[in-house]
Amino acid sequence: MSHEIRLVTETELRKVVSLDLEVIDCIEDGFRSLADGTVVMPPVLSMALPQINAEVDVKTAYVPGLDGFALKVSPGFFNNPALGIPSLNGLMVLLSARTGLVEAVYLDNGYLTDIRTAAAGAVAARHLAPENTKTIGILGTGVQARLQLIAATLVRPVEEALIWGRDAEKADRLASDLRAELGIDVQACPDRSELVGRSQLVITTTPAKEPVLNADWLHPGLHITAMGSDQEDKNELDPRILGKADLFACDRAAQCEILGELRSALNSGDLEDIGNVVEIGDIISGRKPGRRSEAELTVCDLTGTGVQDTAIATLTLAKVRDADTGTIVTT
Amino acid sequence: MSHEIRLVTETELRKVVSLDLEVIDCIEDGFRSLADGTVVMPPVLSMALPQINAEVDVKTAYVPGLDGFALKVSPGFFNNPALGIPSLNGLMVLLSARTGLVEAVYLDNGYLTDIRTAAAGAVAARHLAPENTKTIGILGTGVQARLQLIAATLVRPVEEALIWGRDAEKADRLASDLRAELGIDVQACPDRSELVGRSQLVITTTPAKEPVLNADWLHPGLHITAMGSDQEDKNELDPRILGKADLFACDRAAQCEILGELRSALNSGDLEDIGNVVEIGDIISGRKPGRRSEAELTVCDLTGTGVQDTAIATLTLAKVRDADTGTIVTT
Repeated sequence: MSHEIRLVTETELRKVVSLDLEVIDCIEDGFRSLADGTVVMPPVLSMALPQINAEVDVKTAYVPGLDGFALKVSPGFFNNPALGIPSLNGLMVLLSARTGLVEAVYLDNGYLTDIRTAAAGAVAARHLAPENTKTIGILGTGVQARLQLIAATLVRPVEEALIWGRDAEKADRLASDLRAELGIDVQACPDRSELVGRSQLVITTTPAKEPVLNADWLHPGLHITAMGSDQEDKNELDPRILGKADLFACDRAAQCEILGELRSALNSGDLEDIGNVVEIGDIISGRKPGRRSEAELTVCDLTGTGVQDTAIATLTLAKVRDADTGTIVTT
Repeated sequence: MSHEIRLVTETELRKVVSLDLEVIDCIEDGFRSLADGTVVMPPVLSMALPQINAEVDVKTAYVPGLDGFALKVSPGFFNNPALGIPSLNGLMVLLSARTGLVEAVYLDNGYLTDIRTAAAGAVAARHLAPENTKTIGILGTGVQARLQLIAATLVRPVEEALIWGRDAEKADRLASDLRAELGIDVQACPDRSELVGRSQLVITTTPAKEPVLNADWLHPGLHITAMGSDQEDKNELDPRILGKADLFACDRAAQCEILGELRSALNSGDLEDIGNVVEIGDIISGRKPGRRSEAELTVCDLTGTGVQDTAIATLTLAKVRDADTGTIVTT
């Protein structure tokens, strides 16, 4: 038996897949499927390698109706920066949902993950941030700080952004880059309380293990998306924030309970149980309301799901085929 | 950041990796590492897709001292034969143990799994089958029936083999093929009791969900390797066999308890607990004895481990580099 497999490198992928409304809609469709109960998404396979300061996560999800499903390998090797190599890389494999045969291998070094993660932020903003969000505050200065802001500007009429980072110089540099890239007013803001006070949408994008956002800084009409925590020891939000929120949404409750902000709020007792937690897919499908007034305080906890990988991997196959990019190998 | 990844197809892999003593030794080394307690091997990620009669398993293991570690995706799509496609396929990815970067992608359609699985059978035979094993009985007529016999002939002075299958015609055909390939006497044997009675080593290689080997057929000096069960609903051995055995060994106790013969024997009460179960790695390292006399009845339960994948993927990289085969992609 021989069949064709399309291999696509990061460079090739960057030319055909970018952070735009098509990707955001695709990820939104993925969350809608996740909420309708037909998706099969096993728990993340997580291999911790503390002896070499590394971890490897594997995610997958089968979405009925899609021609393929993704299997994603995300290694995080945190000694890499000393070698001049990014900590996060990896690849994505797309398998046929009909035969299980490998259809495509995306040697993306994490690029598709970056895009689908930012797109999830835009989906959260679309359903939960005030319609008239003019100012966005970003905590963090990494890849997602940049991409989350870009994604939010695609779904809200953003005029201004404020960026905070532990390293003030990095915050300045990112603000300057994004000012040029987006043509809006972007400033570094060393005072987090001020940043939150001036924003209608705050996005936390840090690898923090202690909260970076304090519950005393909140105001009515604020939406917070916390997307940094994806491990059992990470925590960006003061757990009291989850207790105070009028609406607490997440990508996948069963996963956020282990890997997300939900975990610390359940541990601290700020949330009693997950009974009132709403999955973003239920909001998208209309089964549950999203933001109900301009005065509500809403929070969304994103840990990253295999459904997003399957969604973007499937869209990517269509795009690389259209562009006839990548290398076809017969095996 | 750009780096090189070696892509190797099944056709290319078949030219450089074959079932030989080097591979068997390599798998034996993997089991030795597994038993010494330093290997990190998370539970198998298993995605059951009953709605399409399919399943996907993902295995991985980090073995200190090896330069890389494998991540293996094994889809089983059991409606494939009707489409003229094998049920099992998949691929293996080798990542650097230093940086997590993808080093190689083996588009092997399960070939390396076939080889490392057969090699594990040879390791079991080497430590548990009587030294003077002349006759081997094989239950099953699939890929592993063939490979397990070939592997056993590399470690024992085999002169004769008996093959039983539910489909007598398939058993005849396989016997004829193996007779030609190995130059030993290979016959189909429709009577399983006779097959067991005449053999010093019996290997079960079926996907059976009900026992195919009865405890009443046993005799002193027999070794049985059961390698078919790798799912929670599979079972090849009458559980009483495990109760009767002088030594019950397995690849990984914690895994066989869920996926192997060990599960049914614990459920039936034929084994009280896993206290006396010996891992093959402990026998290899000399910490525990293997076969102690020609009269012992021994059993080995193999479910397949991520360590074997990491071991063969690492050896394969050396071999494809030496042969300078595959395609190098810069990403």
